[in-house]
Amino acid sequence: MEFSSKLLENAVYEMSQLPGIGKRTALRLVLHLLRQPEAQTEHLTLALGQLRKEIKFCKKCHSISDVEICDICSNPSREKELVCVVEDIRDVMAIESTGQYRGLYHVLGGKISPLDGIGPQDLKISSLVEKVKSGEIKELIFALSATMEGDTTNFYIYRQLEGLEVKISTIARGIGVNDELEYADEVTLGRSIMNRIPFENALKNS
Amino acid sequence: MEFSSKLLENAVYEMSQLPGIGKRTALRLVLHLLRQPEAQTEHLTLALGQLRKEIKFCKKCHSISDVEICDICSNPSREKELVCVVEDIRDVMAIESTGQYRGLYHVLGGKISPLDGIGPQDLKISSLVEKVKSGEIKELIFALSATMEGDTTNFYIYRQLEGLEVKISTIARGIGVNDELEYADEVTLGRSIMNRIPFENALKNS
Ligand SMILES: [Zn+2]
Ligand SMILES: [Zn+2]
Repeated sequence: MEFSSKLLENAVYEMSQLPGIGKRTALRLVLHLLRQPEAQTEHLTLALGQLRKEIKFCKKCHSISDVEICDICSNPSREKELVCVVEDIRDVMAIESTGQYRGLYHVLGGKISPLDGIGPQDLKISSLVEKVKSGEIKELIFALSATMEGDTTNFYIYRQLEGLEVKISTIARGIGVNDELEYADEVTLGRSIMNRIPFENALKNS
Repeated sequence: MEFSSKLLENAVYEMSQLPGIGKRTALRLVLHLLRQPEAQTEHLTLALGQLRKEIKFCKKCHSISDVEICDICSNPSREKELVCVVEDIRDVMAIESTGQYRGLYHVLGGKISPLDGIGPQDLKISSLVEKVKSGEIKELIFALSATMEGDTTNFYIYRQLEGLEVKISTIARGIGVNDELEYADEVTLGRSIMNRIPFENALKNS
């Protein structure tokens, strides 16, 4: 791509550093901003800059929060002995949106991924182990993505907790409630069958 | 989407104001920036802010340019009597990348689109008419997109130029050079046949 303007080239380059945004898309987005009132660009850059500079993480669960202890951790009606281990705040938001979970969270900030240079020390694992050691947690629920990295991370944490008194479970994976069997991928369908549950339990949950 | 942080919510909202960026994608992009060094967000916001504030347009062709008269307009080896009329700088870049065109451009800044509230007065049409009136242009090539808005804009300009001495042509539309006929859409194939050219001309161009 040959640019007639260094300012334009620079803006497109920085925009295309975002994941999934190619040079063409970046150019389209930047030209859109140029056609909008200057205030829109100001609001965008201000919001991004402020977030990046003033970002805070909950001291307990490491989720993004504007206060020291997030609303979930400080909510007296949540079950403090049940902790769901997730990768990032998107998982917290997804689980919260179900309205089904009343425990707390522990946000790792990613998963172990040697290819991306992310090791255990880059994640909030030691603080999780400390929490378990302190005896305040009765059950941990692993809710990482079902990828090799997710499994590696689960297993790493599992090994760190060996000998400690805590129940460890993992979220059920299977065919979505409204999905047709024939459209499900084989791995999911396989897990669905392997992890079958007593029909009486399913009746209770429906 | 329920956010645990106003700063996060605000950044996601502003990001999702960009065309084609939904709330989910915006959240993914913003979380990515949070995982990168602070400098990346700074570079992005600085580049966007600078472009939006310091943006300049070529006084002659209205293309984005860091100088008063762009490199194309000020290039003595370009044919000054041939002007290609385009919507925006992306079209200039696309045509320049062919290396086939030696004339100048006139960037309208969009096309007439009543539904989007864009009328002729919002586009750089009067300066084009002035240029033609001054007698400096021998041929105009319409290269707007082949949509109703593009056709409307072409026709509006055509009417404004009635009685003036200028040749008006439009870029050829048809099956792409390497495309198979069977995969072409009907409208394109139809135009390809209607606008057929003498075989000798095709031989010359290949
Ligand atoms: Zn918290
Ligand atoms: Zn120019």
